[in-house]
Amino acid sequence: MNLILLYKEDFIDGTNRTRLQGRRLKHVLEVHRASVGDELRVGLCGENIGKGLVTLLNSNVLEMDVHWENPPPAPLPVTLVLALPRPKVLKRVLQTASTMGVKKIFLLNAFRVEKSFWKSPVLNEKTLGNVLALGLEQAVDTIMPEVLLRPLFKPFVEDELPDIIRGTVPIVAHPYAPEACPCGIKGKITVAIGPEGGFIPYEIEKLVSCGFMAVNLGERVLRVETALPVLLSKLF
Amino acid sequence: MNLILLYKEDFIDGTNRTRLQGRRLKHVLEVHRASVGDELRVGLCGENIGKGLVTLLNSNVLEMDVHWENPPPAPLPVTLVLALPRPKVLKRVLQTASTMGVKKIFLLNAFRVEKSFWKSPVLNEKTLGNVLALGLEQAVDTIMPEVLLRPLFKPFVEDELPDIIRGTVPIVAHPYAPEACPCGIKGKITVAIGPEGGFIPYEIEKLVSCGFMAVNLGERVLRVETALPVLLSKLF
Repeated sequence: MNLILLYKEDFIDGTNRTRLQGRRLKHVLEVHRASVGDELRVGLCGENIGKGLVTLLNSNVLEMDVHWENPPPAPLPVTLVLALPRPKVLKRVLQTASTMGVKKIFLLNAFRVEKSFWKSPVLNEKTLGNVLALGLEQAVDTIMPEVLLRPLFKPFVEDELPDIIRGTVPIVAHPYAPEACPCGIKGKITVAIGPEGGFIPYEIEKLVSCGFMAVNLGERVLRVETALPVLLSKLF
Repeated sequence: MNLILLYKEDFIDGTNRTRLQGRRLKHVLEVHRASVGDELRVGLCGENIGKGLVTLLNSNVLEMDVHWENPPPAPLPVTLVLALPRPKVLKRVLQTASTMGVKKIFLLNAFRVEKSFWKSPVLNEKTLGNVLALGLEQAVDTIMPEVLLRPLFKPFVEDELPDIIRGTVPIVAHPYAPEACPCGIKGKITVAIGPEGGFIPYEIEKLVSCGFMAVNLGERVLRVETALPVLLSKLF
């Protein structure tokens, strides 16, 4: 946790004093091992980054007086379209996406996405929020990514995706594409990543006919959680 | 599992027939859902890649007749020096390194490495081998990476590291370095990555005085398991 993410409801009304319990308190006690008088890096969700001066810290509560210093880092100009991975992988991938500055993520169905994945408790709003918050805290960012569920492939690709990719370079990672992933693209990008085992040919064709360029990431087939950082660091 | 990694002892003596049980059998039954007559991609540990024709498959055993086709993909010309991460992270990082083609990994102590990490069962030879094998199976590779444990920072950096980095570009990822990570280096590289919280200034100084260039990976602080694929895909 390189930043403690704060929410409006953490503040004592009308003051710049926050009062925290639970996960963030535990982390400050056990990992930061902070004391009264220490300054910790904090950020207000959706707003600026600053410092919190610890004024009270015990096993029940952490209080800090907060002041703001900087805006959060610039977002990555990318929209991520991700075939819904298995829940464990989803958590890691969303955290990585959040850390790397992705701000809009569509979770999409595909032939090789198991139906049960759509019933995972990871997909409830609160759990998603917690996972994304961990990513922001890692990256020292405060802007919460938006996650949108799209459990139907065809209507999404036909009806929504053309608008989403307008004005962007649309790229789909596909291990068997002959084209290698381009480097250092300027401007906005839409990135699609398939499920374990990849998109099926029909899905790749639909994406390509929508305007996507299918690219490989080299000879080695990568897991989704590796493909995402590799793609983003090649593209930007 | 994009390749079934085979070992010499999987072969019925003097034949090209393998007999598998356990994890690989389970995977072929449950994920590949193969049948007699199917061909599966296989590789012999340290040797070539080929195909295995399924001749017998039931809940107890998988037999395949194997022939060889290609050499494994080229290794990445990189040596990784990694401050020992916590066991869970270690597993993921080693698997990623193995998938991406790293063939030599030093696990190093550092001030912010917890002592208990060195007692983790992940570090026993068999578990390491299994984790690395998963990475190879993902990448369709057969060359097992070598993992070397270095539980003393100073003697390693002073006595061993100068020889290790000879003829390579030595780079240490450091979130607070002013220099950005270079892209597309030609030739061999040695990459050092610190623990959670980073190398301490003394450690960075030791590495820099040994010849390392400290570089950042952008404004956002990345977890070790994200920093590794980001670094490798920038450098190569």
